[in-house]
Amino acid sequence: MNAQQPFLSPLSAVIEEIQAFLGERIVTSLAEREQHGHGESYHATRMPDAVCYAHSTEEVSRIVKVCAHYGVPIVPFGGGTSLEGHVCALKGGICIDLSRMQRILAVRPGDLDATVEAGVTRQQLNTELRATGLFFPIDPGGESTLGGMAATRASGTNAVRYGTMRENVLSLTVVLADGQIIKTANRARKSSAGYDLTRLFVGSEGTLGIITEVTLRLYGIPETTSAAVCTFPDVESAVTSVVTIIQYGIPVARVELLDARTIMAVNRYSKMTLDERPTLFFEFHGSPAGVAEQVELTQSITEGNGALNFVAAADADARNALWKARHNVHYAMQAMRPNGRVWSTDVCVPISQLTPCITETEKDVLAASFFIAMVGHVGDGNFHLGLVVDPSSEAELAEAEALNERLVRRAIALDGTATGEHGVGAGKIKFMTLEHGAAVNTMRTLKMALDPQGILNPGKVLPDADV
Amino acid sequence: MNAQQPFLSPLSAVIEEIQAFLGERIVTSLAEREQHGHGESYHATRMPDAVCYAHSTEEVSRIVKVCAHYGVPIVPFGGGTSLEGHVCALKGGICIDLSRMQRILAVRPGDLDATVEAGVTRQQLNTELRATGLFFPIDPGGESTLGGMAATRASGTNAVRYGTMRENVLSLTVVLADGQIIKTANRARKSSAGYDLTRLFVGSEGTLGIITEVTLRLYGIPETTSAAVCTFPDVESAVTSVVTIIQYGIPVARVELLDARTIMAVNRYSKMTLDERPTLFFEFHGSPAGVAEQVELTQSITEGNGALNFVAAADADARNALWKARHNVHYAMQAMRPNGRVWSTDVCVPISQLTPCITETEKDVLAASFFIAMVGHVGDGNFHLGLVVDPSSEAELAEAEALNERLVRRAIALDGTATGEHGVGAGKIKFMTLEHGAAVNTMRTLKMALDPQGILNPGKVLPDADV
Repeated sequence: MNAQQPFLSPLSAVIEEIQAFLGERIVTSLAEREQHGHGESYHATRMPDAVCYAHSTEEVSRIVKVCAHYGVPIVPFGGGTSLEGHVCALKGGICIDLSRMQRILAVRPGDLDATVEAGVTRQQLNTELRATGLFFPIDPGGESTLGGMAATRASGTNAVRYGTMRENVLSLTVVLADGQIIKTANRARKSSAGYDLTRLFVGSEGTLGIITEVTLRLYGIPETTSAAVCTFPDVESAVTSVVTIIQYGIPVARVELLDARTIMAVNRYSKMTLDERPTLFFEFHGSPAGVAEQVELTQSITEGNGALNFVAAADADARNALWKARHNVHYAMQAMRPNGRVWSTDVCVPISQLTPCITETEKDVLAASFFIAMVGHVGDGNFHLGLVVDPSSEAELAEAEALNERLVRRAIALDGTATGEHGVGAGKIKFMTLEHGAAVNTMRTLKMALDPQGILNPGKVLPDADV
Repeated sequence: MNAQQPFLSPLSAVIEEIQAFLGERIVTSLAEREQHGHGESYHATRMPDAVCYAHSTEEVSRIVKVCAHYGVPIVPFGGGTSLEGHVCALKGGICIDLSRMQRILAVRPGDLDATVEAGVTRQQLNTELRATGLFFPIDPGGESTLGGMAATRASGTNAVRYGTMRENVLSLTVVLADGQIIKTANRARKSSAGYDLTRLFVGSEGTLGIITEVTLRLYGIPETTSAAVCTFPDVESAVTSVVTIIQYGIPVARVELLDARTIMAVNRYSKMTLDERPTLFFEFHGSPAGVAEQVELTQSITEGNGALNFVAAADADARNALWKARHNVHYAMQAMRPNGRVWSTDVCVPISQLTPCITETEKDVLAASFFIAMVGHVGDGNFHLGLVVDPSSEAELAEAEALNERLVRRAIALDGTATGEHGVGAGKIKFMTLEHGAAVNTMRTLKMALDPQGILNPGKVLPDADV
């Protein structure tokens, strides 16, 4: 720095240096910063100081190198659909928006895999795949990016059959905390060659590195698809049916629980006329004979558990309407209350513990002073509550927090987890020590080794040492 | 240390301190040390200075604490079936033999999971599971322990349908380099709560921690099982059939390639009369209708690719004879040459690259001066060569090494891996930088963070910094 230059704060220096190569794609307007300071959850907005729109892995690397040099925090941003405050810039700094990295780099039908940039959404990928007869099954709600889905170890309705992002990412390109670019693996379906870096970065929520490219497993579109809707007199008999189906080993592709309140919200929002009772949505994939077998077995199990009816929806229009309504549940809940905000929480327990966990949770749901809907990927032991709160009411937020805390403690006590698919973000940090015990220290050791300055998405995933 | 005590080397001090709580279960006899200095491979024996037989996680922790205090190396030992020198004590030190930790701690049929101590073998677990209608599918050759299988990310013949140890370990108990005990996860089928420690330790080959307990996924024994044997005029048409079957999405449970030389070795060793041509062994799992469909489709694909015949083996005795013969291939190769030793190597490539990889490799096999058999879990793109060498011949070892190096470089050039399931050990370290590039530095960072003294299985998985 020579005498003519005025003193620059680290942040100003970072912005100036990035501007030199990113031009107008680094933005500091209040509107852009505000938009990048929150996801779709109840968490308060925490704005970054600037937003960068990266177009390539190399640009991400250059941005990170500048931030690393000055020790300025970095928050990666994808579709903005986070539910646990992952994208809140708790310590300010630079938001790297990857949503414009939308190239599908390779589709390899012969290997049943594809490589995409981090900003590609699952919808975009599946549209691109139409001509190939292949599809990518992982489907969280919303227009999530595949990079964001990898970063949060997302899943969705198909996970009971196809697994989560953990099972379906073959390889990643990652920019490390010093700006170095690595590839975590080759494309072989299995390998014993060294540490599993792919799975270390999947679910690390931008705290160990920034995912810029993802290689994914693809699947053949099933020869036959069939759906069914099945209603029950109570949640318990619905859940018991699912537990039996899983224990029986029926390879259902999807099985979703919607409680009576969720069905009510869905009817209103999606203009449907479903019976407002606890309901299971099923989907079956396979050959015609295989699907027929699955449907028959499933119907017989649900009837044995007191189902009120079992309505098949074999044609594509009926199925699509059903799954579109299911995917819009978050927005249907939101619409139940003007100016309401959905506090969406999720837990996951071993399947044998699902009935006690849900039964106990229902008491809390019924006693709450605001609308709560329950919906879940129950085939995995995973379910969500949508607490529709008034975000300006401290009393409601406190009630929601207490209810959420009881739910998570209940799940962990049943050998389950604080989050099945939404991630830790800032919202579930306080449960990490309870869930993992001494292993939290091991996670912290990894974090300090890979990001010694603590600049990557600070304040997420891991509690500070003294918590 | 007071004046009466003679000076003790760190090693003597370690042995004395461990003896104080382990008694006769720490052994320094030449026979025990020799037996623990090698696996089942060509690698030269490298003896540890002492062997400890641990009975519990707590004992492993105490042993590690003593070794850590004095900076003495530790080599974990399971079934001794390693194929890449994993158990060679390259820097001496203490071998911890976990094979007596054989308790099955819990079987939970309702959750389709079980927790076992590290020394339990897959055969022992499956015997225990008989009454439950469940089984554990991962089946490397030999009497491997489940702890060792987790440590090497093992797989076997069922991986094409059920995945490898990567997909089938739910949680681990691990003793860290300082003796601390952690659990890597709860039993929920999916979780987004923090870094995936389970998969970090799976495949880390005892270099990041010592696995003492394993929680595994179980599966229902399929309602129907059927097998088939199919011969081909050449290896290429067999491989092309498999590629088509996988791309078609037929959920075969097993598909194994044995080349003509392997079949010859199998016939001799297992007293069978199989046609000595390139052969595929198939197994199909499912409902009666589902299996019939799979068999029919598979037969039609193999016939379309020039198969000479397709013989179903539906009854259990015929199937068991077939798979027993397959599992004994390593010993059948060994028996082809008095005093021969099998140099068993494995690579894995994307399935579309399997035909070129195997075709090119066959030229090397035919040109070799010793017997080589090829066998593979080809549904995953994974295959092995068994090079039956005279371990006292430097010329043969050099020829084998050169052939192995060409094979591995070929696989990596095709976006594959140096090892699909045997692991890196000491034998494949030299390919790690070629395969992973800069990511090797990331692995080294993790190793240094979790084992700063470098006492856990030194000389395995990662090349030294200057390689």
